[in-house]
Amino acid sequence: MTPCRPGLQRSLTLKFLILGLAFAVLLNPSGIFAGDNTAGEAVTGDIFPLTFLWIAVLLIAAKISSLIERVGQPAVLGELIIGVVLGSLYLTGFTMFEQIKTNEIIHFLAELGVVVLLFQIGIESNIQTMIKVGIPSFLVACVGVILPLVAITYFVGPWLIPGLQYSAYLFLGATMTATSVGITARVLQDIGKSQTPEARTIIGAAVIDDVLGLIILAVVSAIVIQGSIDLYSLFIIILKAAVFLGGGILLGTWIAPRLSWFFSRIHTGTGMKFALVISFGLVFAYVASLVGLAPIVGAFTAGLILTPVYFDQFSDPPFVEDLRKTLREERVDGALAGRLEEIIEVHSHRHIMEFTEHLGHFLVPIFFVLTGMQVKVATLMDTRVIVMAAGIFIAAVITKVAAGWAAGKGMNKLSVGVGMIPRGEVGLIFANMGKGMGVMDDTVFSAIVIVIMATTLVTPPMLAAVFKRTG
Amino acid sequence: MTPCRPGLQRSLTLKFLILGLAFAVLLNPSGIFAGDNTAGEAVTGDIFPLTFLWIAVLLIAAKISSLIERVGQPAVLGELIIGVVLGSLYLTGFTMFEQIKTNEIIHFLAELGVVVLLFQIGIESNIQTMIKVGIPSFLVACVGVILPLVAITYFVGPWLIPGLQYSAYLFLGATMTATSVGITARVLQDIGKSQTPEARTIIGAAVIDDVLGLIILAVVSAIVIQGSIDLYSLFIIILKAAVFLGGGILLGTWIAPRLSWFFSRIHTGTGMKFALVISFGLVFAYVASLVGLAPIVGAFTAGLILTPVYFDQFSDPPFVEDLRKTLREERVDGALAGRLEEIIEVHSHRHIMEFTEHLGHFLVPIFFVLTGMQVKVATLMDTRVIVMAAGIFIAAVITKVAAGWAAGKGMNKLSVGVGMIPRGEVGLIFANMGKGMGVMDDTVFSAIVIVIMATTLVTPPMLAAVFKRTG
Repeated sequence: MTPCRPGLQRSLTLKFLILGLAFAVLLNPSGIFAGDNTAGEAVTGDIFPLTFLWIAVLLIAAKISSLIERVGQPAVLGELIIGVVLGSLYLTGFTMFEQIKTNEIIHFLAELGVVVLLFQIGIESNIQTMIKVGIPSFLVACVGVILPLVAITYFVGPWLIPGLQYSAYLFLGATMTATSVGITARVLQDIGKSQTPEARTIIGAAVIDDVLGLIILAVVSAIVIQGSIDLYSLFIIILKAAVFLGGGILLGTWIAPRLSWFFSRIHTGTGMKFALVISFGLVFAYVASLVGLAPIVGAFTAGLILTPVYFDQFSDPPFVEDLRKTLREERVDGALAGRLEEIIEVHSHRHIMEFTEHLGHFLVPIFFVLTGMQVKVATLMDTRVIVMAAGIFIAAVITKVAAGWAAGKGMNKLSVGVGMIPRGEVGLIFANMGKGMGVMDDTVFSAIVIVIMATTLVTPPMLAAVFKRTG
Repeated sequence: MTPCRPGLQRSLTLKFLILGLAFAVLLNPSGIFAGDNTAGEAVTGDIFPLTFLWIAVLLIAAKISSLIERVGQPAVLGELIIGVVLGSLYLTGFTMFEQIKTNEIIHFLAELGVVVLLFQIGIESNIQTMIKVGIPSFLVACVGVILPLVAITYFVGPWLIPGLQYSAYLFLGATMTATSVGITARVLQDIGKSQTPEARTIIGAAVIDDVLGLIILAVVSAIVIQGSIDLYSLFIIILKAAVFLGGGILLGTWIAPRLSWFFSRIHTGTGMKFALVISFGLVFAYVASLVGLAPIVGAFTAGLILTPVYFDQFSDPPFVEDLRKTLREERVDGALAGRLEEIIEVHSHRHIMEFTEHLGHFLVPIFFVLTGMQVKVATLMDTRVIVMAAGIFIAAVITKVAAGWAAGKGMNKLSVGVGMIPRGEVGLIFANMGKGMGVMDDTVFSAIVIVIMATTLVTPPMLAAVFKRTG
């Protein structure tokens, strides 16, 4: 290996190296890194510094796994696989990374990462085009919720796992209704297809079936707890979801430019703009959770509302300012002036997206590597679990691919259907709740987790292949 | 108020507003926001969505407080004051924000914010200029540690609070040794003086006195626990600190360009560059805590090592690529071409700083508002605490200002001394340890907290005034 030595004097480097080695030899290295000194008591053993290390480990692991792009696969699949590897290392006796799985701060950063990702996708989309794909999205979402719910609750469930009570099958069906938009969105971004009509249909449908899935969960939970649900409660639950999305977009569209105007009176700096943008997304995520929806639904809605135009009163990014200054001071002729003006226009508007992208670079890989880490490789040895998982998996895949046909003419229906396959956070939350309520046992729970992982692992290559085949 | 309506059709806005209001009236608003529905059980009450809200509250509060800049004061003072206000709201019966004080994730984000801030300052500095101010920094740090330690341990402590054992006075003195570089660095950044020799001396000295302070803490702790300390242990503690800084810089300077080269072979994307940069900082922060130093010392060291030159193998930021493309394709004459090349050069190098700045915009205000929130206004009513605090405060201020004289000729000594006044995180950690070890009671602890807050509140206006008076 002959690494380049950019900007360093070779002799100086050598001297530094020798000095460094001398220092290292002088000191007992295990003494430095064991943290057994008295001064260490103040900070060693503290969870915060260790969490810094875990963030670095997850980020670097994610980036090493991007080698998978060399074989034409999306980076997110690499992140999931390296997650599975990191999460299984304890089987070889290396238990250090087990702490990551139970670190609440890491779990928070992962959740914040998904919120930032959906917020970012929302900002990159816009309401007009969302309305255009509104009807296909709605149809795909409805069919994609009803098909797996009916197929698994009434056929696959009773057939594979006979003898459970009705509510168990209902819960099993419900866990397979909600599409995890995170995986699909990342894949679409990776393969450069996030602005196609298919992508918008999938993301729109995933947001809608999240809402539908959560309504079903609310209804199913009520049936498990009360034995039945009254029509009034059902009506209220459905209304809340409709009002959040519709009302959120309407009120948000009215409030956002006014908020922006108000805060630009206090300060026009970049810090103010970014604080405003991220706070808008976070408040929507919080309000979504308050009305019983997943925070990501709120973040996506908030992103949909915000457009760069709202922030024109704020200062330009530094490089745009430099470019403007140059344009003012130098003699610039027609064509060139036009192109430079265009760069200024594009990038002063891209500034908000750049900010969420930078936050995303830091937070999003944490979510996907951590998701991979939670696959329990050991359960894959139980034949009963495998058969159960395989049956549910086939039903889960076929029903969502079939739902893609609801997208209607002019659309690549197979791409839409494949894009709806992955289940994720929402399904896992459902499974946890079902387990907590005593409706499903550990075997069924394991099977569900495996199916969710399988849908997640299978989608990226399938989606890339389907898009590649059809352009 | 007549807010502008950028890019919105007026009639559309009006329709949206009416529809939104109709929706809001249709639904009982308390019903939406109370989270009392069954669907809500899955997510409501969960700490994560609530933490999203707290982040938004802290960011917006910080930004509103930047109004203080209108009266010529640095923004950080506003953040501390709004923190004190938010933290005291419970006295009026509004207890909602009390949850922020006990939210561990918020505390983590604040700590991460300080780490990012010091990392950012490290990147903006560089080793050559640090070495240039090395001797003044070292002298200021030594005098600034010895003076308050001796003055408070042997004179002010026994005089104000007679009858305690020797180790209590020693601990009291030790809490006042370490300068909190965070406050000063932020003020210097706010008033545009972060690249002056005085600023570098202060930051260098603060880093060194953090190290010295932690050595003193280790020694004092050993005395409290064992009753004495042997010369060998003392030697090891001091050696570790020296090796971390010196060895860290030497080894880091050797490793960083090689790491960058290695990872650029995997991927040259922006995501890889940023993951590498932030991981480098986080690993250094972790290793610092491992050898018993504050994580911020590690982050600063890591920043000092990294220079943009190391990352030239990675892709340019999008706007630089656009500008390069334009330059290639259009006919550009001499002077203009030179200026555009300069913009490309500056901003492709600034890319890393922009990334840490964006992270900082998100994390740093959380630290300062939270610091303000931890001031216990109630303790200010106890005369004994006030007298004690006032005495320690005067000693703490005078001894650090005096230490500024050690900066030597050619330097604005008063600015350096004033810049050394603020105590912060390290002092608070010391105080917590002393309380935990039973060396100091609640009154002494309260007094220390108040003094640390007072040094923090008094520095920004003093520093701004001193720099303004002398240019």
